[in-house]
Amino acid sequence: MILEPNEFEMKHTVTYYECDPTGIVTPGMLINMVVLVSEKQSEALNIGTQVVNDNGGGWVITNYEIDITNLPKIDEVVVLGTRATSYNRYFAFREFWVRDQDGHEFAHIKGMFVFMDFASRKMARIPAAIIDPYHSVSVKRIPRITNPAVIAADEATDNNQYRVRYFDIDSNHHVNNAHYFDWMLDVLGADFLKTHLLKKMKIKYEREIRYGQMVTSVASKPQVDVPTNQLTTKHQIMVDDVITTQADCQWITRS
Amino acid sequence: MILEPNEFEMKHTVTYYECDPTGIVTPGMLINMVVLVSEKQSEALNIGTQVVNDNGGGWVITNYEIDITNLPKIDEVVVLGTRATSYNRYFAFREFWVRDQDGHEFAHIKGMFVFMDFASRKMARIPAAIIDPYHSVSVKRIPRITNPAVIAADEATDNNQYRVRYFDIDSNHHVNNAHYFDWMLDVLGADFLKTHLLKKMKIKYEREIRYGQMVTSVASKPQVDVPTNQLTTKHQIMVDDVITTQADCQWITRS
Repeated sequence: MILEPNEFEMKHTVTYYECDPTGIVTPGMLINMVVLVSEKQSEALNIGTQVVNDNGGGWVITNYEIDITNLPKIDEVVVLGTRATSYNRYFAFREFWVRDQDGHEFAHIKGMFVFMDFASRKMARIPAAIIDPYHSVSVKRIPRITNPAVIAADEATDNNQYRVRYFDIDSNHHVNNAHYFDWMLDVLGADFLKTHLLKKMKIKYEREIRYGQMVTSVASKPQVDVPTNQLTTKHQIMVDDVITTQADCQWITRS
Repeated sequence: MILEPNEFEMKHTVTYYECDPTGIVTPGMLINMVVLVSEKQSEALNIGTQVVNDNGGGWVITNYEIDITNLPKIDEVVVLGTRATSYNRYFAFREFWVRDQDGHEFAHIKGMFVFMDFASRKMARIPAAIIDPYHSVSVKRIPRITNPAVIAADEATDNNQYRVRYFDIDSNHHVNNAHYFDWMLDVLGADFLKTHLLKKMKIKYEREIRYGQMVTSVASKPQVDVPTNQLTTKHQIMVDDVITTQADCQWITRS
């Protein structure tokens, strides 16, 4: 595969501890892997975390849209890829992919990032020094990632509580992304998760979650969406009755 | 490094999601990594999980003894190694190491394994077919791994409860080992974990933990052991007031 200047790829061998009981990569680990390749791209361009922090802030993810063809299996050698697609003053749009060595895509992920200023704790204009080296395209209108569907008041739901643990915080000093996926999907239970495959997930991060907090993960009961005929679940992560994260999922039955 | 016939090594690059907030590999991930290399050895010798299961049972870990010089850091390329040291009728003794590419050891781990017969659910004589290919040494007296110290009735303790989640079960269909370490150490809290380094840990598995169970992780408050002058913590995992796992740890203050 010939890479464009704004693209970066690396190989990765899937370990057993990145997989679920059925031997396929967990959704959380899929996100860990693609964040890994984007960090490697940033380091290769000398705009890694330290340089970003030296510019007075940090990258914050606001949305992911995940499309899954099939998830890689244990021991599989996969190619992790990323593209710094486009950006404007405030938003940076990035794509990620996981493919096999013949180029077949397992998953394609879109992500929207903002730059959070450490002093104001608010999003700020993206400094040129940390965006120019990506060869990302400057655009007026950034591609839109649609927000997840919201759980309606009359929808039946289940929920579980989880405490944010010390080892949930990774070396970026934030709750590792994988745990959001584990909290959201665990509520659906083993019977559902063993018999269904995740095909699509949209996730929106609204507020940060911190060490020691108790989170309530709420999931709507799986239901067939009438116009599209798709099996869907909707998800919320709450801290003290405030929504911090929302997501929705589309599923198919495992054959 | 020249390997003996009973040894096996592989390289591994440490990812950010295998590390704690301070950027070093978590104890749980350390164990995941060394189990990974022993699985690779087994597969290379055509005595992987499927073949073991075809012999009517499975390997079960009973004890680990972990000695840590220092833990590898994020992005570090490490060598994972294992040696099928010795065995007798019922016990197989294995060593693991994690080293840098110049041969300096980060950690050395001893593990004791038994073969559990699927029909009787009890330990059984190790079938020759699944031990001979390792070139492990047949011995009468197997090296002993000392058991962890037990929490005394008058010792002050803390505890947390954790539910076993769907994604805690790995493709071996058991609770992934890393979670035992996370449950045990999380009780100590961020203030302690950020300021101390784990130097030694002994862990003994007595009963299996299953999906959906609530576990109570009990830890003694850190105390200086009088004869040895070492900072120690003691740990128990309980399910319905029955001890399933015990461990103890030795710590030093981070400089």
